Amino acid sequence: MDKPMISASLQRVRDVNPLIHNITNVVVTNFTANGLLSLGASPVMAYAPEEVADMAKIAGALVLNIGTLNPVVVESMIIAGKTANEYGIPVIFDPVGAGATTYRTETAQKIMNEINVAVIRGNAAEIANVAGKQSNIKGVEAGNTQGDFVELAISTAKKLNTVVVTTGKEDVITDGDTTYLVANGHPILTKVTGTGCLLTSVIGAFAAVEKDILQASVSALTYYGVTAEIAARKTAEQGPGSFQIEFLNQLSKVSSSDIDQYGDVKKLQIDKKGGKQL
Amino acid sequence: MDKPMISASLQRVRDVNPLIHNITNVVVTNFTANGLLSLGASPVMAYAPEEVADMAKIAGALVLNIGTLNPVVVESMIIAGKTANEYGIPVIFDPVGAGATTYRTETAQKIMNEINVAVIRGNAAEIANVAGKQSNIKGVEAGNTQGDFVELAISTAKKLNTVVVTTGKEDVITDGDTTYLVANGHPILTKVTGTGCLLTSVIGAFAAVEKDILQASVSALTYYGVTAEIAARKTAEQGPGSFQIEFLNQLSKVSSSDIDQYGDVKKLQIDKKGGKQL
Amino acid sequence: MDKPMISASLQRVRDVNPLIHNITNVVVTNFTANGLLSLGASPVMAYAPEEVADMAKIAGALVLNIGTLNPVVVESMIIAGKTANEYGIPVIFDPVGAGATTYRTETAQKIMNEINVAVIRGNAAEIANVAGKQSNIKGVEAGNTQGDFVELAISTAKKLNTVVVTTGKEDVITDGDTTYLVANGHPILTKVTGTGCLLTSVIGAFAAVEKDILQASVSALTYYGVTAEIAARKTAEQGPGSFQIEFLNQLSKVSSSDIDQYGDVKKLQIDKKGGKQL
Repeated sequence: MDKPMISASLQRVRDVNPLIHNITNVVVTNFTANGLLSLGASPVMAYAPEEVADMAKIAGALVLNIGTLNPVVVESMIIAGKTANEYGIPVIFDPVGAGATTYRTETAQKIMNEINVAVIRGNAAEIANVAGKQSNIKGVEAGNTQGDFVELAISTAKKLNTVVVTTGKEDVITDGDTTYLVANGHPILTKVTGTGCLLTSVIGAFAAVEKDILQASVSALTYYGVTAEIAARKTAEQGPGSFQIEFLNQLSKVSSSDIDQYGDVKKLQIDKKGGKQL
Repeated sequence: MDKPMISASLQRVRDVNPLIHNITNVVVTNFTANGLLSLGASPVMAYAPEEVADMAKIAGALVLNIGTLNPVVVESMIIAGKTANEYGIPVIFDPVGAGATTYRTETAQKIMNEINVAVIRGNAAEIANVAGKQSNIKGVEAGNTQGDFVELAISTAKKLNTVVVTTGKEDVITDGDTTYLVANGHPILTKVTGTGCLLTSVIGAFAAVEKDILQASVSALTYYGVTAEIAARKTAEQGPGSFQIEFLNQLSKVSSSDIDQYGDVKKLQIDKKGGKQL
Repeated sequence: MDKPMISASLQRVRDVNPLIHNITNVVVTNFTANGLLSLGASPVMAYAPEEVADMAKIAGALVLNIGTLNPVVVESMIIAGKTANEYGIPVIFDPVGAGATTYRTETAQKIMNEINVAVIRGNAAEIANVAGKQSNIKGVEAGNTQGDFVELAISTAKKLNTVVVTTGKEDVITDGDTTYLVANGHPILTKVTGTGCLLTSVIGAFAAVEKDILQASVSALTYYGVTAEIAARKTAEQGPGSFQIEFLNQLSKVSSSDIDQYGDVKKLQIDKKGGKQL
């Protein structure tokens, strides 16, 4: 994907100001709302089974995040997700902590079974657990190679018939056929809670204004990673508090020339024997 | 209202340090608590039907906000509101998103029916929906004139027998008979989530220390708008993250001389034929 | 306790990066998570009865906070607490608002009855209410002397068989036999919501890596108070917004030389007649 397309997607988000309906965890609500506002989207949080269908159907995208799930919220996610599917609104899913408890893993799988999810975004361990592959990725945080993560994302995308975004040192974005790698981002993101959750909502904002969900995801990841790099540079040595604030600032500022200058996105080339080349 | 009265109200909040019981949405809890602390009030959040009556009756004001409502929280709002009414404690209501879903609109109207609300604070669309006037304000965000918003506020105040605060480019504060316009504030407030919700709680803090609820509301709006202007000036070009932090700083700093210098509040004059003049 | 031991505890937290399971209130979730991340711990929030046992048993410590309690969350606290007890994982308890409502006081006492709590952290009024001593500390915020607070902490520790941490102008940390006083900290902490709650979670992080719970608590209090002093100095005159951000920065930066230079911790000497000397 060329960088002008990414910048065009970003501009479209800012022009359209899409309404993003988030059913997310109680830790990140404020940061998610402020991040979406800075980007130029319009966040709404609504959780009650009594109203989520009404809210989902007026939204540009629906974001589901199981970070602090409970049975009522899961019920709301299913109602909202089915409504979004009915109205052709993209559903973005963040399986926070899948694998950490049986309840999370089973809920994540239930959501994938009952809802047509456009994008699933998580770290490799979460993606693997949603795909039911935990046995293959033991030590996912440690010994696995980048190639394993790419394999995991591609096979999960095929199995679950969705775009998969696996974030890590290098981000993998794939629909199972076409795969992109984004090398932008910064380690300090791991020192601020909710940066993964906000990214999932940012993917929602891009998906709300782009028909091509894979392109929307690649654009969102590149924009987000470039923003983090700029904010980290501006707050070098200050600490995670200052980074968090500057990151919110930069979400509103990052421009097409920043994307041009710093964007680091590559399409994965598959050779004829099925091997991969970068 | 003259500016010394506004400054006197502000000083009274800081001297009395009133306890403000908030039943508010999960997006803004932290920002609301920090904003009230900076102002000089004492925030408490309590949501369970098992305890809200006990909490409301020791508070200086009760703030109800339906931003992430659910049936249990609505039950708590009714219990707390009735308790506050019984003890003569002012109830301030923020009908977040009224009109966006049927559940919100009906809940907002239920609260107005069952509780004696001292002040209702929202944007024009929310106020209209609570008043059951949505048909008259189509395109409320776009084509309506300031005059329409003043009309809406005054007629709603009369109909619902409460002080109405409609925030927008210019804020309208009215009890149906006497109307004030406050022109302070800054557009960047719309880029930080919860600035409207916090304002509602700030009205609560002023209402906790002033018998005249209309005056308390005008004082709160002027103080809040002046604070936003100062914070926006100090963080010009930095972005919404820095504005949010400086706004929290300035809530603790804005002084009577700032109110004097920057306050922009006018009483609306009604001419003999019922027309309005500024 | 000598300062090198405190610094060693801090280093151990940063090396081990313990998982801290928080069942806390909705006001402070984000600040708590960011504070723990800055310190170098790994926060997780999980609230549903369906999963809290699974989460508690993989954690290094469990933190219970009743700031916005409700019956389901209390049920989760009991399940998680019993699981933690079974697995030998320390439980740290913050009885926010005990005494303010009957529901809070009774819930706090129920938790103390049903769970083996390693540390209870609160202000003097909260500690007294949990201990059922409210009648003895009328005017706890006003007229009592430091000696009264020390007495209260020691007698509560003995009665409840736990480490008691009473925070105030000077912090008291005691297991009933041995008592420490920490004079670090800064008044601006009271202007940022959740600084007490985060401290409780920080005690959890230290307790996760130290067998001696009294030492872990003293180390946590000293580290936290020194951090606050440094952040307050760096943001003098700026206000509580800037302090909050700098405090998050400094949580990641405070070093053993800062502990050495600024730490103000004393062991309380009991003379032969049972009197106390500093």
